[in-house]
Amino acid sequence: MDFMEFLKLANEETNRIIFDYLPKGHEVEELDLLYRMMRDYPSRPKKGLRAALCLLSAKALSGDYRRALVTASAIELFQSWVLIHDDIEDESELRRGSPTLHRLYNVPLALNAGDALHSKMWGLLLKNEDILGCEMAVRILEEFSKMVDRTAEGQHIELGWIAKNRWDLSEEDYFRMASLKSAYYTCTAPMRMGSMIGGMDSERLEQIDEMGRPLGIAFQIQDDVLNLIGGKKYGKEGKDDILEGKRTLILIRLLEVAKERDRIIELVSKPRRSKTREDVEYVFRKMVEYGAIDYARRVARRLYEEAIEKFDLVFEDVKDEEARECLRDLFRYLIERSW
Amino acid sequence: MDFMEFLKLANEETNRIIFDYLPKGHEVEELDLLYRMMRDYPSRPKKGLRAALCLLSAKALSGDYRRALVTASAIELFQSWVLIHDDIEDESELRRGSPTLHRLYNVPLALNAGDALHSKMWGLLLKNEDILGCEMAVRILEEFSKMVDRTAEGQHIELGWIAKNRWDLSEEDYFRMASLKSAYYTCTAPMRMGSMIGGMDSERLEQIDEMGRPLGIAFQIQDDVLNLIGGKKYGKEGKDDILEGKRTLILIRLLEVAKERDRIIELVSKPRRSKTREDVEYVFRKMVEYGAIDYARRVARRLYEEAIEKFDLVFEDVKDEEARECLRDLFRYLIERSW
Repeated sequence: MDFMEFLKLANEETNRIIFDYLPKGHEVEELDLLYRMMRDYPSRPKKGLRAALCLLSAKALSGDYRRALVTASAIELFQSWVLIHDDIEDESELRRGSPTLHRLYNVPLALNAGDALHSKMWGLLLKNEDILGCEMAVRILEEFSKMVDRTAEGQHIELGWIAKNRWDLSEEDYFRMASLKSAYYTCTAPMRMGSMIGGMDSERLEQIDEMGRPLGIAFQIQDDVLNLIGGKKYGKEGKDDILEGKRTLILIRLLEVAKERDRIIELVSKPRRSKTREDVEYVFRKMVEYGAIDYARRVARRLYEEAIEKFDLVFEDVKDEEARECLRDLFRYLIERSW
Repeated sequence: MDFMEFLKLANEETNRIIFDYLPKGHEVEELDLLYRMMRDYPSRPKKGLRAALCLLSAKALSGDYRRALVTASAIELFQSWVLIHDDIEDESELRRGSPTLHRLYNVPLALNAGDALHSKMWGLLLKNEDILGCEMAVRILEEFSKMVDRTAEGQHIELGWIAKNRWDLSEEDYFRMASLKSAYYTCTAPMRMGSMIGGMDSERLEQIDEMGRPLGIAFQIQDDVLNLIGGKKYGKEGKDDILEGKRTLILIRLLEVAKERDRIIELVSKPRRSKTREDVEYVFRKMVEYGAIDYARRVARRLYEEAIEKFDLVFEDVKDEEARECLRDLFRYLIERSW
């Protein structure tokens, strides 16, 4: 089985668990609407990369991915509620090709539906007690707790930069933010949990942190690149990050090297609603002109290679070598994907 | 010890646990701000009623409240993050006498700080493993999961009425909403969890649901009354509920009996920002004139009496009779308090 087939399988199996668990309908009109809102983001097309990283780690170590299915499904639920809240915080218009939840309904209802889905994530994880035993179920909960904490910290850093209109940012600042906001929950946490369930010892688990961080930052950089040049398939309006004034590595690099720095800061600092298409295209052209996108790609490639080097140590001794190769292919896909 | 002394003690002890657990400071400026935002609502003056209900239930049954302290503290943390999000959803300006968190900072940062605090609630609950053992710790997590689910459902119902400008509501609709939105987490869940920790059998636990529901609805009605006539001590602008267009029992009753129904609906339907002081005072005068406030108080009293009748059955056979009497006094306070 190649990793694309595994991604498809993982998506099918986690979707089954998620939609079995989420409430289906209610005779009270309002509650029926809430349940529909809760099922909305989980129903949108997704790749299920995080679930697959978790499942493949478990499979590589123990030969069995099924014991990690509830955990992997909860990771995907995490992604759903976080995106609902992110979209409100960023005033995003589109998510995976359709209007964001708060645009379909309104901010109060979407915010609350995000909370309801957040609670369901924890509720689903309690099913691990029967599958993994009480102690391991609680350890997974601890991992989730750390994962949500870090993601909120990373999100706060990014929102704080925007709120204070900060542009004096270094590559190090970006790495810290990306590591907390997305690398941890996208790569480190899923692999840590899958590996724990697969029986990995605690010393190796720490090495996963060192491998997941560069991989996850590389993933985020590729995400930022795709936001600029990914087009319709990516499911956003295109160049949203410039509209939202996101401090990507690309923009940070551009501000370091461009002689039009002041002009660029002036444009990207404008509130989203008063930015014109021309403003966005100007900044984008400068990114191309100064090679900021290529620069970011090179950084992502370097981080990926760092992660792969660690991969060979962490998963040196596994039970299921086919799963390990699948996982390695998935690593490459994370930074080479086109959507 | 009377219940007021116990409330003070419970507040002190749960505060110690909460502030020990929440992160204190960080060298990175942004993270330091996030941590300050997370400590903000938990630091504001509060009564700690929910924690006390939990602790007194445990103490009545087993003589010991200390085993329930982490759970009671997590209930107070629940209240904090829910209020941060509620205040955004309701566009509230004041919370416990100070500006709401999203007014002090902004909506994105406050929303995210609420999520960070939500995560901390679950994280704190994991400490129960050492105190209560793994199985009981997971039972408590299940109770929390149910509690958060219901609260979000109740909140959705209320927000949905506002979004659709619905006024065709009956007392039954109000009871369903209030039961989910506040009665469950204010009364039923704290007493269920305290009693579980105190060793109550599952049959009696079900009776707590039947007792907590009328008590919690009575509490909410008293809260709605205080919002109208509680003045500054209550820590809101005063008559916020009319400003926000909240479907309280008082307003539902008024719409049932007032010949000025259409005029009242016209005024309360206005968006918050275009409502004048005169609009609010007009609606309030009609509430007084038509006895809607007194009506709601009578309903609350009837519900309280229903709850007290069940109380004597549920807590018939306890180990600590002093704690039981304290708990009974607290019941009365819930509907007689003046802030």
